[in-house]
Amino acid sequence: MRQLTGELLALNTATLGHRQKFSEIVEQVAQAGFGAITPWRVEIDEANPQTNAQQIRAAGLQVNGYCRTAYLTGIDDNACHKAIEDNRVALNAAAELGAKHFIAVVGGLAHKQQSVTEARKQILDGLAQLGETAKQLAIPIALEPLHPYYAAERSLLNTITQALDWCQQLDSDIFGICIDSYHTWWEPQLESAITAAGNKILAFHVSDWLVPTKDPVFDRGMPGDGVIDNRTIRNMVEQTGFDGFIEVEIFSKDNWWQQEPQKVLETCYQRLTTVV
Amino acid sequence: MRQLTGELLALNTATLGHRQKFSEIVEQVAQAGFGAITPWRVEIDEANPQTNAQQIRAAGLQVNGYCRTAYLTGIDDNACHKAIEDNRVALNAAAELGAKHFIAVVGGLAHKQQSVTEARKQILDGLAQLGETAKQLAIPIALEPLHPYYAAERSLLNTITQALDWCQQLDSDIFGICIDSYHTWWEPQLESAITAAGNKILAFHVSDWLVPTKDPVFDRGMPGDGVIDNRTIRNMVEQTGFDGFIEVEIFSKDNWWQQEPQKVLETCYQRLTTVV
Repeated sequence: MRQLTGELLALNTATLGHRQKFSEIVEQVAQAGFGAITPWRVEIDEANPQTNAQQIRAAGLQVNGYCRTAYLTGIDDNACHKAIEDNRVALNAAAELGAKHFIAVVGGLAHKQQSVTEARKQILDGLAQLGETAKQLAIPIALEPLHPYYAAERSLLNTITQALDWCQQLDSDIFGICIDSYHTWWEPQLESAITAAGNKILAFHVSDWLVPTKDPVFDRGMPGDGVIDNRTIRNMVEQTGFDGFIEVEIFSKDNWWQQEPQKVLETCYQRLTTVV
Repeated sequence: MRQLTGELLALNTATLGHRQKFSEIVEQVAQAGFGAITPWRVEIDEANPQTNAQQIRAAGLQVNGYCRTAYLTGIDDNACHKAIEDNRVALNAAAELGAKHFIAVVGGLAHKQQSVTEARKQILDGLAQLGETAKQLAIPIALEPLHPYYAAERSLLNTITQALDWCQQLDSDIFGICIDSYHTWWEPQLESAITAAGNKILAFHVSDWLVPTKDPVFDRGMPGDGVIDNRTIRNMVEQTGFDGFIEVEIFSKDNWWQQEPQKVLETCYQRLTTVV
């Protein structure tokens, strides 16, 4: 298991709640000692990503992931097509930024009457189309299974095994998997699922599941404050040979998003280097 | 697929919010046309269950399940032992009531520092001990996987496949599985998991996942009001040869638990016979 020092750590900007100018975020993340950043689309000028890329490089940071796909499910073919086109714009920006991967959050049911089967078909069709663009740009797509709580409204990709199965169905080496401890800690066969995912693992995200949780979307905890054994899960991931960044991603509307960004970054860094 | 008529329907009394005297509930459930009832421990006089058994028989109802185990995880051996003893009392009551099975909701983490592995070990140890009592009483224990949202605080048994795996590990035909559509609808390989569970399926519960949901514990929907395709799932279950009751179980603090019991029962009956 690696000794975690700053150059192995990535900060997902969702952790800071998107409250500041991007240039300010980049500087603070670098000053806090992180080696990489994972920005969100809302922060990047996708018509001219080179300015943002330059800001990141100037701060000495690498770009780990780029967040994230527009949902691939839609009320009709037209809606699905629009999402794919939009995701192609994002893939281009990811390439310009020099991101190591583009995160795919695939979408839930497009409407109440849609069947799970139909929604998953839309997702796989959309991913297959996006895969071609990703391959041209050499930007891997990291399929991120979300916790089953998110199945109806955000993602019908919910386990590591399902993500690996989809990688195999999509049959292109441009697809891999993002494992987030928040989404996957409960899995009945977590270790064997991670081992099977093996070299398909492109990203590893950490945060914590609070008890009680007020909201499984926007009440995530800082590693160490909840019930997830992030160190054990990191060990499982690194045992597969994973040598990428350990990325912290915390959605916390009422707690961390209300605190000073520098305090949030210091706490993240401290927890990543002690409990993860 | 069976045509659902009253004699195939069971009412889980949680659906009515435990607001009335048990004798009143029993009469209303029978009058609404249900063939069976699944009571909760809080409603039954476990020192003298024959009185309640007599009420149920007099109303012409069968007892489907009995709800449910005390959690099998604990802060120490003593706590686990107490839970097992308590569950033995419930098993005795289930036998006196003539229930077809006793529902097992196994428990989450006993405390924040407990590992998932240790908690699952406590659960399996506890189930093995309970299995002996259940066998003596000839009351099958229905292991109910709960939605992964419940993993931390209520159940570290979260998928049908895991439940089947545990049945095999426990290696006693006194264990089976309760499939609840609310907990399992999102499973990536739902149909094959149900098919594999096959003749281990002892119970089938239905309700609906609302979009948006205010609370995945106490904001369940009436079948037809959410995104779950209960009919398709019932078909998967019946394809295995399942010929038990179709049981409705709705925890709905702010909606159905505020409505007149008779209206709730009528709505359940109507939905069970049209959309499930």
